[in-house]
Amino acid sequence: MAEQLIQGIGVSDGIRIAKAFVLREQTEPASIREEIAAEEVEAELERLNRAKEQSEAELTELAEQAKQTLGEQQAGILVGQARMLSDPAYYPQIEKRVREELLSAEQAVSAVTEHFAGRFERMDNEYMQERAADIRDLGKRLLSQLLGGKRAGLADLREEVIVVADDLAPSDTVQLDKRYVQALVTRMGGKTSHTSILARSLGIAAVVGAGEAVREIADGELLIVDGSRGLCIRHAEPETIEEYRRRQSSEQSELSALERFRSLPAETKDGVRVEVAANIGTVQEAAIAAEQNAEGIGLYRTEFLYMNSNRLPDEDAQFAAYREVAERMNGRPVVIRTMDIGGDKELPYLNLPKEANPFLGYRAIRIGLDRKELLHTQLRALLRASQYGNIKIMFPMISSLEEWRQAKALYEQARRELVQEGVSVSDSVEVGIMVEIPSSALLAGSFAKEVDFFSIGTNDLVQYTLAVDRMNEKVSYLYDYFHPAVLLLIRQVIEAAHREGKWAGMCGGMAGDPLAAPLLIGLGLDEWSMDAGSIVKVKQAISRLDSRDCRTLTDRLLQLATTEEVRQELLRYTESQPDA
Amino acid sequence: MAEQLIQGIGVSDGIRIAKAFVLREQTEPASIREEIAAEEVEAELERLNRAKEQSEAELTELAEQAKQTLGEQQAGILVGQARMLSDPAYYPQIEKRVREELLSAEQAVSAVTEHFAGRFERMDNEYMQERAADIRDLGKRLLSQLLGGKRAGLADLREEVIVVADDLAPSDTVQLDKRYVQALVTRMGGKTSHTSILARSLGIAAVVGAGEAVREIADGELLIVDGSRGLCIRHAEPETIEEYRRRQSSEQSELSALERFRSLPAETKDGVRVEVAANIGTVQEAAIAAEQNAEGIGLYRTEFLYMNSNRLPDEDAQFAAYREVAERMNGRPVVIRTMDIGGDKELPYLNLPKEANPFLGYRAIRIGLDRKELLHTQLRALLRASQYGNIKIMFPMISSLEEWRQAKALYEQARRELVQEGVSVSDSVEVGIMVEIPSSALLAGSFAKEVDFFSIGTNDLVQYTLAVDRMNEKVSYLYDYFHPAVLLLIRQVIEAAHREGKWAGMCGGMAGDPLAAPLLIGLGLDEWSMDAGSIVKVKQAISRLDSRDCRTLTDRLLQLATTEEVRQELLRYTESQPDA
Repeated sequence: MAEQLIQGIGVSDGIRIAKAFVLREQTEPASIREEIAAEEVEAELERLNRAKEQSEAELTELAEQAKQTLGEQQAGILVGQARMLSDPAYYPQIEKRVREELLSAEQAVSAVTEHFAGRFERMDNEYMQERAADIRDLGKRLLSQLLGGKRAGLADLREEVIVVADDLAPSDTVQLDKRYVQALVTRMGGKTSHTSILARSLGIAAVVGAGEAVREIADGELLIVDGSRGLCIRHAEPETIEEYRRRQSSEQSELSALERFRSLPAETKDGVRVEVAANIGTVQEAAIAAEQNAEGIGLYRTEFLYMNSNRLPDEDAQFAAYREVAERMNGRPVVIRTMDIGGDKELPYLNLPKEANPFLGYRAIRIGLDRKELLHTQLRALLRASQYGNIKIMFPMISSLEEWRQAKALYEQARRELVQEGVSVSDSVEVGIMVEIPSSALLAGSFAKEVDFFSIGTNDLVQYTLAVDRMNEKVSYLYDYFHPAVLLLIRQVIEAAHREGKWAGMCGGMAGDPLAAPLLIGLGLDEWSMDAGSIVKVKQAISRLDSRDCRTLTDRLLQLATTEEVRQELLRYTESQPDA
Repeated sequence: MAEQLIQGIGVSDGIRIAKAFVLREQTEPASIREEIAAEEVEAELERLNRAKEQSEAELTELAEQAKQTLGEQQAGILVGQARMLSDPAYYPQIEKRVREELLSAEQAVSAVTEHFAGRFERMDNEYMQERAADIRDLGKRLLSQLLGGKRAGLADLREEVIVVADDLAPSDTVQLDKRYVQALVTRMGGKTSHTSILARSLGIAAVVGAGEAVREIADGELLIVDGSRGLCIRHAEPETIEEYRRRQSSEQSELSALERFRSLPAETKDGVRVEVAANIGTVQEAAIAAEQNAEGIGLYRTEFLYMNSNRLPDEDAQFAAYREVAERMNGRPVVIRTMDIGGDKELPYLNLPKEANPFLGYRAIRIGLDRKELLHTQLRALLRASQYGNIKIMFPMISSLEEWRQAKALYEQARRELVQEGVSVSDSVEVGIMVEIPSSALLAGSFAKEVDFFSIGTNDLVQYTLAVDRMNEKVSYLYDYFHPAVLLLIRQVIEAAHREGKWAGMCGGMAGDPLAAPLLIGLGLDEWSMDAGSIVKVKQAISRLDSRDCRTLTDRLLQLATTEEVRQELLRYTESQPDA
């Protein structure tokens, strides 16, 4: 067959050559027979029992894996599901309906699961309501055992594969094991989807949004994936495979050269150290960040807690997540951003208004200060978690001192309440703001007197400073963090922080770009937070620099009038650096 | 009947008490009979002839009025329509169809008008295509004469009324005569619609977007309109009327106190003069601006030329409009902004993309530099018009020096072409940029070396600097041009201009706010451009100020950290000023 190139969006770099593992949607229950004959009852019950035992074994195994890779909380969910199989209100009821109503095992599982889940769902208690989702998950597991014997799932992988799917559900991503999953190719998805972020963190090559052609890929066929170019190749010619093997091996030798930086601190040639931290969205990514030797979490995007659910997470659920991240980082700093909902992040159950320009609209702290109960709950959860690690709280989308003061007052109020309730709270929680709106960068001098720290969010800061929606392909060519106006704002923020003895971090895409390293060293940026996958590259870039040279370079860069000149100058400078 | 308050959006101040004049939609042609009997032919032809004569008289009268108030170009359209009534391909054809086909006069007018207009429409010539619209307009006029005898239109007003309508079409606004039209109340519309802008320019009180209640207002009933509160009152009690008469008279004495400023220059007590100019969107508004003694046009929004049409205006059509404005201002400066399409200004025939965040998208100069033929045509038209007055060209939404240089290069190219073609072009056309994106304010120092002038567009500059869409009611409370970060940017722009010996203007809402006057005098703003209706108030505010005091005040204001403090300080200062 002729070689076929499937073009998608490259969201995580890397060249991989492996067999396809096609993750199919589950068979539709519509194709199942509904009733059985009386003489079939015993055989049906035996089938059911086998499915139960397999499900139990599967869950126990998964829980054991999760404990090692993802933490107690995730493992606990799976253990709970296994336990539920023994609940007298559940499994015996399924048997009863097979025996007494002559339902097929599948029908009985579906009916009892729905009934049982419904009972939990109607309870006025968030914890119990969440159990409904677990019951449904359990029902699906039983069903897939009944339907196909052991379902070939991500958790069963024992060889290196390229996972091919429509898209990955959050429950799938939990099972991604980077020992076996070499790459992902999905029909749907975009650069900022959770799957993409996770792939980058795990260092799994990934091509998403590759369209209908993905559906034709068969299980077991050989694929080549080129993550940096967003390419997936089917039926590759031998020469093509050879060529990609060569590129893969040179890529790998580059990577192993980088490997030694994993355990080293981020330090310039002349001994200036900075903190290199990771951006995360979930507890799971905290585990990856720790593995990549991140010196902290510079941005924990808590909105995933809100988005991966169909209701608001309550204080206890939030507390558990924050505590786990704090514990996992084991005393290293964890900057947690209060929810940044709105903008491009929708949340159906909050009934957010439809807006003409959501990026200039009702989002983040604007929602938090309008619907104070949401922010209050989150602040209580954060403060309760503060005694389990080194938590710092960061407010997003602050545009004025008034907003900061209101948010800070809510924080103080939550703290007073907890102290009155006798809950112990850390005494050293730092509270700061994300600098991502031009006005707060311009007023950094005033903010620095009141906040404990700044973290510069370059993604939004660039968008507003240049009036460019970077997701809009008609104008995204204008989006560039090396625009001289952006550099002026960044310098202003860092200098303002230092004048008041505060620290300044950065958690936008710029921090993870090795080309920006000389500039950011020159500006004196204290904390650099990025996708975990970028950490070693940035450490390597920093190791080649001399901070005094960088300061001279930076003074020169900040005189330049155009983005092009800044980029050229940085490229020239970087190419002139000897390898460290 | 009980007093009824109708709440709308107040878009033009003023208290007015007068009879309602309800501008009805034209009767639907569906209700007209289609054919006549043979014996009715002569009577029908007589009816038709009467309608023709009345239409001719009406058009001649309207043309005469337009000549005096709106200029030759607008008058020319009406004269052309009158002439068309004598075209052998038009009116005689209508008579023929009545006589030979026994069509009713209305049917015959509709059929022939459509046929005739269609012929023009299919021609490959923009001028001819535009004639199709004139023919349709003429057909409507004939029809309305046939249907209601003399249609009661805006042009027929001979007494003071409050015009009540669903909305005003551009052809209605052409006929607004402020001697008779005291106020407007419309069911639809918003603050920035063309009707609202025009009402403010003309000093006609206006309440728009007042909803369904407007439909119940009957012709001739007494209404009270309070433009500043967005209120329209029906069936007012005698005490209410009394109260409003008192408020109206005190308002009028305030206005007559302002009247003397109309003919005075804008000058502080200590003799510092600034240029007070008007923002306009049409040739018509230029006439109003001249009447209000505007010292120039600080912003001519050319996009109305594009929006009030169903195709792109060609070079000649643009040239005619620019020339007329330039001539009308008689040597005073006219700053013409190249088209600012996109954002909230849609243009169906350009097929602009649907965008998630249009304010951060494909608009203004971004379109002009992408579809260069559009900008090129406009620059040619502007340069051709330059010899008829004092035209300055301004590029909107410039975010980088690269964009400015590209736009300037297109300007130079158009100029070279014209010179080669032997067209005479003024030698002293200034070319500048609108500063409305934070990046260009931040880089004002670099821009000032290359541009001839800046005009600060506060509306967009505030939106981007604070990341707030001011049209979004959930966040518009955050929109404030007195935000300290905005003040820092404005100062930076004005100082950068002056360092290079250039002038700095302002054409956003801030310039027309008397409260901002001490600050803008203190900052040394050279040119202030605003709705014509604000000119006298701002001149009055300036006349009370001492520029040295203002500079001291401004130094203090720029130290403040919050919007509230800035406003308070300005209010305190303004209230402490003695009347000049």
